[in-house]
Amino acid sequence: MEDSVMKNPAIRQHSVKRFHHNNFVQTTDSVAAEVPLTINVNGAEFATLLCTPSFPEELVTGFLASEGLIRTCDEIKSLSIDESKGFAYVELHIKLAIDPASFSKRVIGSCCGKSRQFYFRHDVKTAKTANHKISLPAEKCIALMEKMQQESGDFQLTGGLHNGALCTADELLITRSDIGRHNALDKIFGHCLINRIPVKNKVVVFSGRISSEVLLKVSKIGIAILLSKSAPTSLGIELAEDLGITTAGFIREGRMNVYSRPERILQG
Amino acid sequence: MEDSVMKNPAIRQHSVKRFHHNNFVQTTDSVAAEVPLTINVNGAEFATLLCTPSFPEELVTGFLASEGLIRTCDEIKSLSIDESKGFAYVELHIKLAIDPASFSKRVIGSCCGKSRQFYFRHDVKTAKTANHKISLPAEKCIALMEKMQQESGDFQLTGGLHNGALCTADELLITRSDIGRHNALDKIFGHCLINRIPVKNKVVVFSGRISSEVLLKVSKIGIAILLSKSAPTSLGIELAEDLGITTAGFIREGRMNVYSRPERILQG
Repeated sequence: MEDSVMKNPAIRQHSVKRFHHNNFVQTTDSVAAEVPLTINVNGAEFATLLCTPSFPEELVTGFLASEGLIRTCDEIKSLSIDESKGFAYVELHIKLAIDPASFSKRVIGSCCGKSRQFYFRHDVKTAKTANHKISLPAEKCIALMEKMQQESGDFQLTGGLHNGALCTADELLITRSDIGRHNALDKIFGHCLINRIPVKNKVVVFSGRISSEVLLKVSKIGIAILLSKSAPTSLGIELAEDLGITTAGFIREGRMNVYSRPERILQG
Repeated sequence: MEDSVMKNPAIRQHSVKRFHHNNFVQTTDSVAAEVPLTINVNGAEFATLLCTPSFPEELVTGFLASEGLIRTCDEIKSLSIDESKGFAYVELHIKLAIDPASFSKRVIGSCCGKSRQFYFRHDVKTAKTANHKISLPAEKCIALMEKMQQESGDFQLTGGLHNGALCTADELLITRSDIGRHNALDKIFGHCLINRIPVKNKVVVFSGRISSEVLLKVSKIGIAILLSKSAPTSLGIELAEDLGITTAGFIREGRMNVYSRPERILQG
């Protein structure tokens, strides 16, 4: 076994009974690591994420921004991770002004747009409409997806990870993996915040489906183009139209489907 | 287009710009429907699920049981669904005795077993150890997976659904689909509760990954064998060992990997 696999915290070795040609063989398999990470904010437990143990600072930062607790890293006084126990301790400069009981209440209002009848309260505050002028050729979308797939070695080993990449119109900047698709996007979000990377001219390439939750996450990061290997859902497409986000799915074998705001994907 | 597709609430038609051979073609595609379903319990909002609009009574019943609010259907006084608005109204015979603030608090205790250091409070109450004597041949596991795949027409149309099936050792009893993998399992759970189906001699066949959350859900249903098309996570396997559940993954093309409690899968 290669040293890099042994030392990779995202992968664990597990004994397995493999069945093939009517025979069982006892062997060892690479399995995606899943660990709990409990986030304490200002001394109180805020949430527990089930995640891949990589880039925890990015994950926590992105998660707090997604949930509307912070907008920039300047609002974080301190952030420390106890990896062995699976805890993150965050001190914010401000007091938490969130009523936990109302946090995930459904918000229904016909005032903001046809498909915006569904939102959680913190989504209303944090989801942004994208009106960026960025565009890229369809062939480039397909090339970016292929590149991300090639770089996702951990997925190839375990079959159990979602991958996301932050890209310019020309190249992959970073790739992040996680057993949870939201976590992979939160790591990208956290990376952008920690390194103060402008996102208006960036694209997200993603292995998972374009559900409403994924779409809202991308909207919160501030990205205008989401390229996925997988299928969309109806609410994912409706929210994308409403929030001005270009979505393309089923990017495989030289093909793609553009579901919303197709003007940003150019021919030839 | 077939009538059955037009009338299927789990599928919506959406316009799409399809790119292939350096050309865009405007066409229509079948997309997995995603809708919010807000569950009111005893007059108060309890949770909002994002789900596929099929079998909502089963979904709500299974979800309430998963969350530890009910153990049998006898505890439900009334359950009505307003599909057009996406609301479910549940009246229970008992008052809710749950403190919402503590509901998703992480529970850490080394007393209950090596890998049980992670649990949410409601999981401690509802996850059951499986000690059933059920077993089945490996060839039968592969046959059940193939049968579920053949029956999952909605997935084949949309590429965006997870499938789960409740099976005996010989045949598929029901198949349920949902954009959310937890929802597909909750529908199966609800179906068993509503129809008072004994689960000790049943198997669940599932398209999604074996994560800790999926494993806990299967444990709550009371199932001892989980067969998946996909990969496991490390915590999924650890919890399966601890809760006595047999898990097999990557069931494809005549192969399978057995990750935990292999004694229930027989050779030949």
